[in-house]
Amino acid sequence: RQEISILRQGFEWIAPLIKLLGLLLILLGSFKLAPTLLLAFQGEGVETKTFFYSMLVTLVSGGAMVFIGSLAPFHLRGRQIFLLTSLSWIILSLFSALPFIFGPTQLPLADAIFESVSGLTTTGATILSGLDATSQGILLWRAILQWLGGIGIIVLGMAILPFLQVGGMRLFQSESSDWSEKALPRSGTLAKAIGKVYVGLTTLCILSYWIAGMEPFDALVHGMTTSATGGFSNYDASMGQFAATSSILWIGVVFMFLGSLPFVLFVHMIQGNPLPIFKDSQVRALAKILLSAVLIMSLYLATQLDWDWSKAITQASFNVVSIVSTTGFSSTDYNGWGNFAVLFFLYIMFIGGCSGSTSGGFKVFRHQLSLVLMRNQMMTLLHPRGVFSQNYNGRPVPDDVIRSMVAFAFFFFATIGTLALALSFMGLDFITSFTSAVTAVANIGPGLGNTVGPAGNFSSLPDLGKWLMSFGMILGRLEIVTFMILFTRAFWRT
Amino acid sequence: RQEISILRQGFEWIAPLIKLLGLLLILLGSFKLAPTLLLAFQGEGVETKTFFYSMLVTLVSGGAMVFIGSLAPFHLRGRQIFLLTSLSWIILSLFSALPFIFGPTQLPLADAIFESVSGLTTTGATILSGLDATSQGILLWRAILQWLGGIGIIVLGMAILPFLQVGGMRLFQSESSDWSEKALPRSGTLAKAIGKVYVGLTTLCILSYWIAGMEPFDALVHGMTTSATGGFSNYDASMGQFAATSSILWIGVVFMFLGSLPFVLFVHMIQGNPLPIFKDSQVRALAKILLSAVLIMSLYLATQLDWDWSKAITQASFNVVSIVSTTGFSSTDYNGWGNFAVLFFLYIMFIGGCSGSTSGGFKVFRHQLSLVLMRNQMMTLLHPRGVFSQNYNGRPVPDDVIRSMVAFAFFFFATIGTLALALSFMGLDFITSFTSAVTAVANIGPGLGNTVGPAGNFSSLPDLGKWLMSFGMILGRLEIVTFMILFTRAFWRT
Ligand SMILES: [K+]
Ligand SMILES: [K+]
Repeated sequence: RQEISILRQGFEWIAPLIKLLGLLLILLGSFKLAPTLLLAFQGEGVETKTFFYSMLVTLVSGGAMVFIGSLAPFHLRGRQIFLLTSLSWIILSLFSALPFIFGPTQLPLADAIFESVSGLTTTGATILSGLDATSQGILLWRAILQWLGGIGIIVLGMAILPFLQVGGMRLFQSESSDWSEKALPRSGTLAKAIGKVYVGLTTLCILSYWIAGMEPFDALVHGMTTSATGGFSNYDASMGQFAATSSILWIGVVFMFLGSLPFVLFVHMIQGNPLPIFKDSQVRALAKILLSAVLIMSLYLATQLDWDWSKAITQASFNVVSIVSTTGFSSTDYNGWGNFAVLFFLYIMFIGGCSGSTSGGFKVFRHQLSLVLMRNQMMTLLHPRGVFSQNYNGRPVPDDVIRSMVAFAFFFFATIGTLALALSFMGLDFITSFTSAVTAVANIGPGLGNTVGPAGNFSSLPDLGKWLMSFGMILGRLEIVTFMILFTRAFWRT
Repeated sequence: RQEISILRQGFEWIAPLIKLLGLLLILLGSFKLAPTLLLAFQGEGVETKTFFYSMLVTLVSGGAMVFIGSLAPFHLRGRQIFLLTSLSWIILSLFSALPFIFGPTQLPLADAIFESVSGLTTTGATILSGLDATSQGILLWRAILQWLGGIGIIVLGMAILPFLQVGGMRLFQSESSDWSEKALPRSGTLAKAIGKVYVGLTTLCILSYWIAGMEPFDALVHGMTTSATGGFSNYDASMGQFAATSSILWIGVVFMFLGSLPFVLFVHMIQGNPLPIFKDSQVRALAKILLSAVLIMSLYLATQLDWDWSKAITQASFNVVSIVSTTGFSSTDYNGWGNFAVLFFLYIMFIGGCSGSTSGGFKVFRHQLSLVLMRNQMMTLLHPRGVFSQNYNGRPVPDDVIRSMVAFAFFFFATIGTLALALSFMGLDFITSFTSAVTAVANIGPGLGNTVGPAGNFSSLPDLGKWLMSFGMILGRLEIVTFMILFTRAFWRT
């Protein structure tokens, strides 16, 4: 009898998660309708069937989970949200991989999971080559994965991580991360506004690409993966395919930058309050960082490699903004720009976009908090009895935010270090293993070097390496601690 | 009249520094007697003269500075000590470079400064090749520089940095870092005991090397540079010269390890209290880290490279302990051990020895504090309202210690990153520029790769690169902030 009661308790704890995961699966499954219809329209009978069955499996699984999950009362608390967040990215990746396995690409399991994780986490690293000749159903599906992943990340960064107080994100606690019943209706309104901004931005990007000369399908796919700072392309050459049309590259620069800004500021903007976006400390810092980085790289290309200035500025802008916004498109193989450029690109991989955006990585506000910490420390050394204010965006920063930011930094670098060492053990060279680890955990896309650099892809990695990379992408997406905490004994106690 | 008063104030502020720097120069100059006598005994007339004049210049300069500095009353406060600490390493390096410039090696200025900075900071990176045929006067002088540097670092770590509260070193505040008049006599006694331990350890190491089969002169030099965890050798092959005699390598392992322990614990030991050294949290952590690292590397060599176990264990132990203790000897070119080994050696360069020892780098206690921080953060996520103790070595750690440790970490990595980027701009490849930066700032010695790896040296670096490396070695030695603070406006205000 006691055992039954424990089982019941366990079920009641897990049921809300099952229900929510089921709902997410239904959402994912319904998006499979788009490639199904596209393929049916193109008359690709076999592929259409594959997508249709894959959609059916996803929808039925989702429905069943919602049914099972509804058998218990709905209660959601802190620890369940940790588990839910991690599980949602894992389970959605599994069901997203179906078309890669059973569709025309016929990928082995490790490759299919790699590709779908890379999509949903908006990393954009790929194991596919010959993209130029790949089924449009598959290409559209990759874009949809990134686009869904992008909105998922905004929700994660605005509502979930600040609530869980992960990685210094408590700094961004607001009504959107207040889960009390009183605040929920207002959050709902905000969520809708954010959704509208995301759809609007994507539409604008697609239209701009199209007007600038892309084929409609290319404009659709690249518009979706640009706004999501995802980086999947329809071509092995990535955006290098369009390098002759510099207006396309500049459209990319604009929308990658917009995708790496806090989306809540766009909402203020369309509500008639454009000031916050220009006054926000994180946005200003990102703009300054980007301008400096582009300036340095343009100077380098123009003076050291003797490029003409307009080419230097265009190429520097596109590829620097692509890496810093963690999009991961490339417009040329910058791996061949010399030793300085390679190290420079490695460094800017550690910058990351703004919190509350679609981009990943270390994120700008954490660099700003580090600078606050370093300056304060200098002052303390000179005035050992002095007390110095620590402000961010005009407000004092609580000590616990600094502490959790710092803990995040250690976890971040430890994860990258461990992943790189594991990859090197499989025989990958120094630069391949290290930059693969960085690009996975920071959700960027390409690495550096000849194998996994902008001109390469991840297909040559051993299977175990692909699994570890997939793990690293999810870890990075969930700001590491959200996931790692599931592996502590304390999490599972009582 | 007002101008004269300002000048007088300025002189009174700087005079104590001039006096103390003069005393240090007299100490340095008197040590030049040893190579002078050695060369005179060997009948090397020209070289003897060079060393004699170099000694004379150093002693006279030192004497003059003591005289000038004594013209004002002696007062020493916080900010002066920052300046004194930085200036002492710089000025001693300048006078130490004289024999390299005017002696038989006839080095250009950048090379001579590189070599003397590398000596006094106990880094052990060298621009000399053909060491096997180099004048014994020069070889002895290099060893003396490292040996003096070694005791300097112990003083720095025990008395100066904890007093200045740099980089979390307040954790090691004790009577030895209490500069009040009451505590000074006791500190004097401790300083004498530390000196005895250092001389004793060095003597033991020299004798052990000699008994194991080294020539007396080799035993002398390597004994001095082992105890100081310095790493200068008399041979281009470093300790590979003696790789056939595994007992010599094992003697090296023992004394490099001892050199990286807190020297104050040896004093307790000879005072009849051996327990602290076995109970000290930092010592235990270093021992565990070394055992694990040696185990991993031995397993790798034995299973992946098919070495026999005794060779694998000996080579792994020697080279791992050499890097972690920041000595920088090599017994073979581990750069050829494969991708995993190269990345592994890069990582263990970031460990560092114990504080209060002769070794440099990030240091074990900071890794331990990081772990405390990370574990606490996990617990805070699970119990947002809980308060968790942070202990180190059985005592609570104040928050400001954690903060200054973290600020140190950011400064440390920022310095390495900037130095590496500057080196890459001069055309050095990825691994050469990055590991050169690490090895300089962590005061280890060799880098990785074919140019600056264990089989190479730093002679091929451009002059500017050598100057920057010298700067990096001094920065690393002074735990960065001690030096960087001189470049802030706040330091020079009032
Ligand atoms: K990406
Ligand atoms: K060294």
